[in-house]
Amino acid sequence: MIDFLLLAGLLAGPAGAAERSRDLGIIIGRYPPGLHDAITDVKGVRVGHVTLSEGDGPLAPGKGPVRTGVTAIIPADGDLWESKVAAGSFVLNGNGEAAGLMWLEESGILETPILLTNTLSVPEAQQGVIEWMLRSHPRMGIGDDSLVAMVLECDDGSLNDLRGRHVRPEHAIQALEKAWSGPVEEGGAGAGTGMMAYEFKGGIGTASRVTPKEAGGYTVGALVNANQGERHTFRVLGKPVGLEITDLKPALRQDGSIVVVLATDAPLDSRQLSRLSKRAMLGVARTGLVGHHGSGDLALAFSTANRIPHHPKERMIDLKVLSDFHLDDLFEAAGDAAEEAVINALLAAETTKGRDGNTAHALPHDRLKKLLRARR
Amino acid sequence: MIDFLLLAGLLAGPAGAAERSRDLGIIIGRYPPGLHDAITDVKGVRVGHVTLSEGDGPLAPGKGPVRTGVTAIIPADGDLWESKVAAGSFVLNGNGEAAGLMWLEESGILETPILLTNTLSVPEAQQGVIEWMLRSHPRMGIGDDSLVAMVLECDDGSLNDLRGRHVRPEHAIQALEKAWSGPVEEGGAGAGTGMMAYEFKGGIGTASRVTPKEAGGYTVGALVNANQGERHTFRVLGKPVGLEITDLKPALRQDGSIVVVLATDAPLDSRQLSRLSKRAMLGVARTGLVGHHGSGDLALAFSTANRIPHHPKERMIDLKVLSDFHLDDLFEAAGDAAEEAVINALLAAETTKGRDGNTAHALPHDRLKKLLRARR
Amino acid sequence: MIDFLLLAGLLAGPAGAAERSRDLGIIIGRYPPGLHDAITDVKGVRVGHVTLSEGDGPLAPGKGPVRTGVTAIIPADGDLWESKVAAGSFVLNGNGEAAGLMWLEESGILETPILLTNTLSVPEAQQGVIEWMLRSHPRMGIGDDSLVAMVLECDDGSLNDLRGRHVRPEHAIQALEKAWSGPVEEGGAGAGTGMMAYEFKGGIGTASRVTPKEAGGYTVGALVNANQGERHTFRVLGKPVGLEITDLKPALRQDGSIVVVLATDAPLDSRQLSRLSKRAMLGVARTGLVGHHGSGDLALAFSTANRIPHHPKERMIDLKVLSDFHLDDLFEAAGDAAEEAVINALLAAETTKGRDGNTAHALPHDRLKKLLRARR
Amino acid sequence: MIDFLLLAGLLAGPAGAAERSRDLGIIIGRYPPGLHDAITDVKGVRVGHVTLSEGDGPLAPGKGPVRTGVTAIIPADGDLWESKVAAGSFVLNGNGEAAGLMWLEESGILETPILLTNTLSVPEAQQGVIEWMLRSHPRMGIGDDSLVAMVLECDDGSLNDLRGRHVRPEHAIQALEKAWSGPVEEGGAGAGTGMMAYEFKGGIGTASRVTPKEAGGYTVGALVNANQGERHTFRVLGKPVGLEITDLKPALRQDGSIVVVLATDAPLDSRQLSRLSKRAMLGVARTGLVGHHGSGDLALAFSTANRIPHHPKERMIDLKVLSDFHLDDLFEAAGDAAEEAVINALLAAETTKGRDGNTAHALPHDRLKKLLRARR
Repeated sequence: MIDFLLLAGLLAGPAGAAERSRDLGIIIGRYPPGLHDAITDVKGVRVGHVTLSEGDGPLAPGKGPVRTGVTAIIPADGDLWESKVAAGSFVLNGNGEAAGLMWLEESGILETPILLTNTLSVPEAQQGVIEWMLRSHPRMGIGDDSLVAMVLECDDGSLNDLRGRHVRPEHAIQALEKAWSGPVEEGGAGAGTGMMAYEFKGGIGTASRVTPKEAGGYTVGALVNANQGERHTFRVLGKPVGLEITDLKPALRQDGSIVVVLATDAPLDSRQLSRLSKRAMLGVARTGLVGHHGSGDLALAFSTANRIPHHPKERMIDLKVLSDFHLDDLFEAAGDAAEEAVINALLAAETTKGRDGNTAHALPHDRLKKLLRARR
Repeated sequence: MIDFLLLAGLLAGPAGAAERSRDLGIIIGRYPPGLHDAITDVKGVRVGHVTLSEGDGPLAPGKGPVRTGVTAIIPADGDLWESKVAAGSFVLNGNGEAAGLMWLEESGILETPILLTNTLSVPEAQQGVIEWMLRSHPRMGIGDDSLVAMVLECDDGSLNDLRGRHVRPEHAIQALEKAWSGPVEEGGAGAGTGMMAYEFKGGIGTASRVTPKEAGGYTVGALVNANQGERHTFRVLGKPVGLEITDLKPALRQDGSIVVVLATDAPLDSRQLSRLSKRAMLGVARTGLVGHHGSGDLALAFSTANRIPHHPKERMIDLKVLSDFHLDDLFEAAGDAAEEAVINALLAAETTKGRDGNTAHALPHDRLKKLLRARR
Repeated sequence: MIDFLLLAGLLAGPAGAAERSRDLGIIIGRYPPGLHDAITDVKGVRVGHVTLSEGDGPLAPGKGPVRTGVTAIIPADGDLWESKVAAGSFVLNGNGEAAGLMWLEESGILETPILLTNTLSVPEAQQGVIEWMLRSHPRMGIGDDSLVAMVLECDDGSLNDLRGRHVRPEHAIQALEKAWSGPVEEGGAGAGTGMMAYEFKGGIGTASRVTPKEAGGYTVGALVNANQGERHTFRVLGKPVGLEITDLKPALRQDGSIVVVLATDAPLDSRQLSRLSKRAMLGVARTGLVGHHGSGDLALAFSTANRIPHHPKERMIDLKVLSDFHLDDLFEAAGDAAEEAVINALLAAETTKGRDGNTAHALPHDRLKKLLRARR
Repeated sequence: MIDFLLLAGLLAGPAGAAERSRDLGIIIGRYPPGLHDAITDVKGVRVGHVTLSEGDGPLAPGKGPVRTGVTAIIPADGDLWESKVAAGSFVLNGNGEAAGLMWLEESGILETPILLTNTLSVPEAQQGVIEWMLRSHPRMGIGDDSLVAMVLECDDGSLNDLRGRHVRPEHAIQALEKAWSGPVEEGGAGAGTGMMAYEFKGGIGTASRVTPKEAGGYTVGALVNANQGERHTFRVLGKPVGLEITDLKPALRQDGSIVVVLATDAPLDSRQLSRLSKRAMLGVARTGLVGHHGSGDLALAFSTANRIPHHPKERMIDLKVLSDFHLDDLFEAAGDAAEEAVINALLAAETTKGRDGNTAHALPHDRLKKLLRARR
């Protein structure tokens, strides 16, 4: 049987024609990526974007310009409410909102999709998730428990009419319905539309790693919404790119954030997934993350390997969990995938003019290539 | 000058005519209450309710019956965004949503009001707070940071058409605008409208304690939204009331939650306020709290004593903070106030018929009084 | 075959002839206790005490009087290093030392015994555990990992020559070697020798609960070292005993602590065991715990049901874990067992004269009985 | 007046004649170092080492070879017990023991020195600290509280007879008494004697950064005990040094750890210092930290700017605390100092033969220099 998605991936190339890290010889870590070098390399994971981009010129709160969106990550196939996945998290710097986080930390599970959007649109994204979940679960909130929607945000107010709150619940629903398991559009797509990273245009990036067969052959995928950092700390493969490219800065720049979502098919429990989340931030650190006071720097991780029933038939759940003594490959893979995902976000993002003519410039590939060949 | 609010409090009696703990001889702890025996005894704290109660009969999702509402707590006078208060928290059992919690924990401050509502209406309450804050802060999200709204919830789906999400953003705004510093309406008011505690009608309760002059003469106020527990663990002053009154139970009952908000004028920092929050739960434990898996049991605490500027004129902030060696009176006061607040919620709540005829019975005062005089 | 330990338990009565809670009609909660109403009701758990009591009169640092000891809890049969148990914890107030806690929290396991002793003797108790573990594991620290000893403490300096550090490593080893699975000596035994609770003589107490067959029929056992609290908050079954018995106080009294160790045969993982630990403190709260600044109030919990290999043969570990939806009985049992364990500690403890003639009085059983029959 | 220590520093050069990062052109970050480029650049901080190195040949447990030691960090001048410093922490991976950590986290203060040693010698180091503190505080544990010693460890069992526990309490006391405020000996000194990092010889390293005058002109100093990592992830200024120098590996290598201690004269409170601690690990990440399961990766931070009295004369403490909006320079400085401290540890360490002839090779300066000039 022909695997349509696989085929699509091969035809499309990784996320279309854009150059990604590997095309530039940026090879991070010792493990190879999966098929799409994307979070969707973890079987069952789907990603969908709704991109909102409209208007130009001076900021007219409530009217635009609009440079924002929603990205939906569906962690696994099937009914996620009835058959949950294990999840963990790490908050490096808790600036901003992480709807659903308290419950994820208490329960060790994820039972809804994860949505990414801008800071002031968290409620609308939650409404979309709630709507979407209520539809398919008619007992929810009546005889069954009621849900807590998982929504993470970054601030895109330097490009976007943030106060206008242009994301509507239906955009979240559309993102959920568009979610697919193929290559992931990167850069200024979905929630990444109005983001900047290291004072370049940032946004969505993704990457994956596959551990060696003898270590389990597990896949770890990362998806970031990169909106963090000041230029001067930006590094690629350790090269001080941010010290070399000091032009191409936006006129306006608020402190940003970075959200990392990790997926894996390795059978980890919530404690192990929280540990994995920490390692994602070590990878992001290698791109120059300082973790500013005004930044919301946060990682979530989930595993698709054990499904946890909402209404277990038995009192007991059977789990196969990886021994802690075999975690190191996954820890390394998580950091490497997160690091590459940040670079991929910057490579894919295109120069974007936003509100008041404020411009987030794309990281210039040619100058980057030259620097990668330089000594320093 | 005549203090109108004080006068209103005296005229109204503590929250109208209803019997409260002290009227029944339920004296918890060694410290006296403040003027209203309410969270509003802490100067600057204001509370407002919007109660939504409409319709009857079988549940028609989206139509009713409606038994829900919003309660707003404004922590301090003045512009809370420009002049924040220190805050801390404790999650005993993190079931449910606590919008804004991650940022409170990272920053150690509270810069928005705290709203309470039902589980599925968190987004609408957030929208109300966002709207209300944006209005008075025209630079927010443009040149200034953007806000994270603090909204806590309990599940009122056993009485209320939860899926109908009848709370609108404007209800949150109304609750904010109605907030006053006098006696607090208890029981089935505001966010307490559809709540049950120990399988009786529950909801909003409040109490306060004043520490001795030589210990600082500080006030600690507690406000709870009591929606927790099964009947058999319910205790009043240790008396096993729940084992004695075994009738008067609702036909339907989902697992509940308890949210405790503590206010104090003692000069505590965020670390100390998180410690104070833990003590609130020790007081609630004395009413029978088990902390069920399905329960969201959470305390927040804030101090009005030091105001923390958003745009400090100087790099440095001057603080006067209580020495840790003087915290014990406050710890004791916090537990006592929280315990009494739960009892006050139950005493004030009136029998309420909700969806599908499901009835939450009031704790019968006469039977309680008899039990309090009994030996066991 | 005759079960010798069972027989011993029956012959001895619960911990000898002393009256325990149930003998006084103090029935806490709805679940019955196990055979010994002790932590040792969880199969595999063993407890051993070494009691050091010597000298009298004025304090001569380094010489005495000595009123201290060590209590060892061995969580499970077999080689705990090679076959670990899942564990979790909750710190209500982190005053004092909890050696090994960081590793327990990271790993979610317990791989050494738990020792209890006085504040300044933690290093000696650690040395004892290290010695004992190294002996039986000749590769440890050479080709194998090296261990972290789990030692918890309370301050017995009001009765004991604390500065004299009279506990030696060999006392810890003796406690380990004396550990047995029968009834547990309570009150001023082992680490409880110099402890006070609510300004009475305190120390070691234990209790257990068995959940109903249809809830799994699991046993939860609690062991406390009760050294906490001021008299006026002391309650028994909610009766304000501390307000009634205001005499019989020691001349000297430092702030104390309470350590709770929970054992269960329910198949819980570390996340669930941390949740269980919180519930222990809710039970202790019902005896009057305020959680003073100077108090180290801490609970650990472990489960004997899944054994976690140090050198797994396979990469994967098979676990059977209880569904979170079935935790509530255990949560209730944990609180009830911890509450009773505190009362048992006080009931078993005998009046003890310590350094400088300072006297910790036993809780007078007769006066307690009278109060339990009284109305208030 | 002549500043003797300053003079000593200038005469000695930074830690003697050894090449440090800056001598090799390894300039990390944009802020300059302090006088010694060491943690002792923060006024009041003193560091002392006791190095134990004896014997050779095959391991004879209890006899040697000995390759271990103790490092003492005294955070501030004066009586630290009576006049404490604010402190915070971050556990990246909690493998191992961190004596005193629970209390530091609860209290937000540091009231004893910090000692570093090997894993199995934590109790002896604690005994040394206890002894040293008891001597100068005759009321401690009698009428005054009793102390909790702060001791952190890394495993040096690959070179050292770890089971022999050759560190004695008096070594800890000697390290405390030798502590001085001048340049810090790096590499295989004190607790660093038997450590390896990235499969080279590791150990103690230090560095400091001074923020610009207009940002406060604060000093942040870092001291590490570097014992972490596998070779292949080792990077210097992002250069994949570990992929280039693949020889010079030890025959035996256990998983290691890294402990980072940060000092600053910026007026931070405990919450802010915990945030600072996280940033240290971001800096270490840039040298290749993966945070292995078997690694204890932990940072502590303290501020010398506000002293917190043990027996406050008033109920209230006056603090001047930096506004959170001015933390970013310190966050950046902390990461940069920690990163450089790791490199300094490796640069200073000399090839060391340990037990069973196992050899930890020094990072070869010449090969490193060549690589730093290369393109990749």
